[in-house]
Amino acid sequence: MKCKILVPIAKGTEEMEFTIIADMLRRAGADLTVAGDKEIVVCSRGIKILPDVLIDELDLDDDWDAIVVPGGLGGTENLTNHEHFVEILERHVANNKYYAAICAAPMIFSDHRLIHEDALITSHPSVKDKIRNGVYTEDSLSVMHGKMITSRGAGTAFDFALKLIEILFTKEKAKEIADSIVYSR
Amino acid sequence: MKCKILVPIAKGTEEMEFTIIADMLRRAGADLTVAGDKEIVVCSRGIKILPDVLIDELDLDDDWDAIVVPGGLGGTENLTNHEHFVEILERHVANNKYYAAICAAPMIFSDHRLIHEDALITSHPSVKDKIRNGVYTEDSLSVMHGKMITSRGAGTAFDFALKLIEILFTKEKAKEIADSIVYSR
Repeated sequence: MKCKILVPIAKGTEEMEFTIIADMLRRAGADLTVAGDKEIVVCSRGIKILPDVLIDELDLDDDWDAIVVPGGLGGTENLTNHEHFVEILERHVANNKYYAAICAAPMIFSDHRLIHEDALITSHPSVKDKIRNGVYTEDSLSVMHGKMITSRGAGTAFDFALKLIEILFTKEKAKEIADSIVYSR
Repeated sequence: MKCKILVPIAKGTEEMEFTIIADMLRRAGADLTVAGDKEIVVCSRGIKILPDVLIDELDLDDDWDAIVVPGGLGGTENLTNHEHFVEILERHVANNKYYAAICAAPMIFSDHRLIHEDALITSHPSVKDKIRNGVYTEDSLSVMHGKMITSRGAGTAFDFALKLIEILFTKEKAKEIADSIVYSR
């Protein structure tokens, strides 16, 4: 069975983080859905993306193996305030599934109290003070604790995507994809 | 005066390479135009992009400071065969302007004889044999020779974009942007 992954995007999403997450996980073989807050999503540096579906069209009962949230301050704020997305995310976390965020997006987990008290977490340095739960770390590009994986910025997005592939697929698959794009950690 | 940059995309363009080039150069302050072969460009892993303009709408007399071509095998083939784009590129190179390509896209420079005999060039390893001019190197992630800059794959796209920012803007600007996205070379 294919690994089902949801990637939400909204006005102001960081386009590099979004494409690295979606492209790398699709290379790994994921059945990945890009859900947008609008029919055309204008990202943080003006790149215009057509999502596969609207977030509002997603069924609350849909079952995802992982939800992976790209950053960008504007996109993060829009997703934090998107009630339907937040309900999907809350149900997903309550069901003990993988949830991941990069750059500013770990703020969504903090704002909605989805971070376990003792969970290691990281984010973009500029929003460090907005992460009010968990144990903040700057020691790794990407960290995992329980079912939560977080990372720091567009410059750590390949590391983040490869870590997700290791977790959701295999280490060998991550190595194979890293080699195919001429990436060395 | 702003640095005017053209980034062409076509069906099958590698979406990570495209967004890293466009986003990073816009962060640096470029006046960057995304020109597509269609109104909706479906990239190599299914990400759908709305370009700013159609390639066919570009004026042959438009003046660009740099043309930067993302890879992806399908996108590269479509751009190689796009007569209007090739004419714009040939005029641009004849005017001694910067031209750059990553991954499979250096093939376009080879197919249209835009590589100087003694020019250092690189590409994705899988298309090495298709680069029939210049002096091929695998020693660097990105290389510059004269006004031509080439690089190897999505995993070297940040290095490539930062090299372009150093050349078209300043080393300080490249360092500032690398720091802001938590990227370390």
